[in-house]
Formats: sequence, structure tokens, C-alpha cells
Amino acid sequence: MDSFFRRNLINCLSGYKSLNLIATKNKKGVTNVAPFSQVFHIGAAPPLVGILFRPHTVKRDTLENILDTNFFTLNHVTPSFYQEAHWTAANWEGSEFEGTGLEEEKKGDFFAPFVKGSPLQLGCSLVETQTLQVNQTVLVIGSIDHIYIEEKGLRKDGSLDLNALETVTVSGLDEYHIGEKLGRLAFPKPGVNPTEL
Amino acid sequence: MDSFFRRNLINCLSGYKSLNLIATKNKKGVTNVAPFSQVFHIGAAPPLVGILFRPHTVKRDTLENILDTNFFTLNHVTPSFYQEAHWTAANWEGSEFEGTGLEEEKKGDFFAPFVKGSPLQLGCSLVETQTLQVNQTVLVIGSIDHIYIEEKGLRKDGSLDLNALETVTVSGLDEYHIGEKLGRLAFPKPGVNPTEL
Repeated sequence: MDSFFRRNLINCLSGYKSLNLIATKNKKGVTNVAPFSQVFHIGAAPPLVGILFRPHTVKRDTLENILDTNFFTLNHVTPSFYQEAHWTAANWEGSEFEGTGLEEEKKGDFFAPFVKGSPLQLGCSLVETQTLQVNQTVLVIGSIDHIYIEEKGLRKDGSLDLNALETVTVSGLDEYHIGEKLGRLAFPKPGVNPTEL
Repeated sequence: MDSFFRRNLINCLSGYKSLNLIATKNKKGVTNVAPFSQVFHIGAAPPLVGILFRPHTVKRDTLENILDTNFFTLNHVTPSFYQEAHWTAANWEGSEFEGTGLEEEKKGDFFAPFVKGSPLQLGCSLVETQTLQVNQTVLVIGSIDHIYIEEKGLRKDGSLDLNALETVTVSGLDEYHIGEKLGRLAFPKPGVNPTEL
């Protein structure tokens, strides 16, 4: 396999991935925003999120800003701005907000900016980092301190309707999708056929 | 927030997640299969995959089998068996394959079984594990040793058409979706509007 074919293939193997714009601000006040597909759930109590950073293949600004300032935001992407979200990965001079036309949203005195128009925004702070020996990938663990969700997406039981929020998902390095619900299934029990919730 | 509401909410926050059935076999020859949404890309050369195990909320059999035998398989899920995939998470006595009707597929002399009918199957071996101090989550890193993909989903450039493979994605703990493509975008450059690939 040549390296281009290999990179495309290996990045697709896990399946659909979450897509979040991570927004930060450095100590000089310059904001940054970049797309990440390696954000995942670490724990619910306390609410923790994990992010994998591969220093050689993604821009380092986000990681450096988090390590320097402790704060970052996660922002879901919708079809109305997924192209701008992709565009933030270009090698901009200055803030990607200015370059792409995405708008910063300031909330209270939270240090990092949010992405205006995102239907799900999380204000997070750094808890710990670990470097994986196997290939120097950096795992950042953050605490979820503030949650903002458009009302149409929040159900009474706490679950989210990602179809209603129009959350975008990514496959591989560059392909974007929305979700179409198959079903929501009740807690599984042995010997009892799965049923719709 | 009560703990039920909180658990539903926090598990949804990252967005759509990959869905894979992990199949293993213990030293006595008893097979196991269980759904996981915390599988992600660690590196392309060598090809590495990471899996997060939270010992208190998911069954431990999969983790124990991987640690004992070194081998596991990852298998994408399609709409035709997503209910059985969900069902494997029930507290079965004996193998979940027998309980749910999913079929094991043996390939060559690979120790762990694959899930028959899955359009993307990976044969993996254990590379290393790390325990996260913050909440004892276990990160397993595996090497991708064998790749089987239905031809209809593999493009010439190595990327996968997950829509064609009918790969299922999961949100929260219990909601399943297929993807609907918005677009595939060219490598982003500053000052040049994103274009379809």
C-alpha cells in the first residue's frame, strides 16, 4: 500500500466519527478553531471528555493553547457550516475565525470562545494529559464545565436527538454526513428480543 | 441532574460515535461478542487502533479475553443486524453468539472469531494497555493485522464509502443511525473556498 492509500484507508476503519470544532485562545488573545474527530466520552460523574492529538498530522495550536491556558470549547457542526468547519483546518495565518467567516461567541467570562450557531457547545477545562508510548499521541482529558444545547435536541430523559440538532459526523479525513435514525432500543435482556424504546 | 438523566446526557455530548462489535475467545474456547462505541484511530503506520474500556459500566469479558489471549476482531454493524448487536450487551450466560443468533466466522488460524455478514472486519492483536489515573478507564491499543472489506465500499484512493457499506453509527447508549453523505471536501487551503472532491 502506498502511504496515501494507507492513510485514507486506516482513517476510515473505525467507522463514523464524532465531529467537533475545538476553539481556544492563546495568552496574547489570538483565537483558534480547528476540527477534531477524536473526541470521546471518558466518564459521566464527573463529566469528562478525552481528545487524542497526533502532533505530526494535526495543527499544534489547539494543543498548545489548551496546555497554556487550560480552557477550550467543543462545538457540534451542522450542514450549514460544515464547509467552513473543514476550512478551519487550512494553514491560516492569524485566527481561523477571521479566515473562514465562522463567528466567535463569548459567554460570560469563559476564557475560550464558542462557535456561534453551533447547536451544542461545551465549555471545558484541562484535567490531565498522557502521552502514549507507542507513537507519542497525546491524550488530553478535560472536565465538562458548561453545557449549552438548543432546546429542540434535548429529551426529557437527558438523551440528545442528534438528528434534530443536525449534528454532522465525519468519516476518514474529509467526508461529512448527517445521521438518519434507525431506532432506539430498550435495555437489552437475555432471552428477550430487543424492543424499540 | 439525577444520575439517569446525567448518564444519558453526558454519553451523547461528543456526537455520533463509531459502532463496532468486538469479538474474542477465551482460553477455554468460549467466544464473546459485545458492542463498543469507543474505538478510534491511533496511527496509520503502523496501523493502530485504540479502545477505551470503562470497567464499571461495560462487561469485562472482552477486556479480560484480550489481555489473556492477545487477539480480538472489530466488526462494523449494518441495519440488518443492529438489533442483535445491541442485544449482545445483555448479561448472557455462555456465548453471546449463541444467545443472539449472530454467527461466528473463522478465518484461517486467527484465534478470535469474526462476525459473519459484517462488511468490514479487522483482525487485531494487543500492543499495550494504559490505565487513566483520573477514573481507572483502561485504554487498549491494538495493531490492525488483517483487513476484510466488502468490495463495494473500498474506493481507489483507499477511502471507504461507509454509506455503501451501510455502516451503523450510535449516539448515546442506545440509539442507532445510518449516515447520509453531505459531501467530501478537498484538502483545505487558506483563502480558497472549500470544494467538493
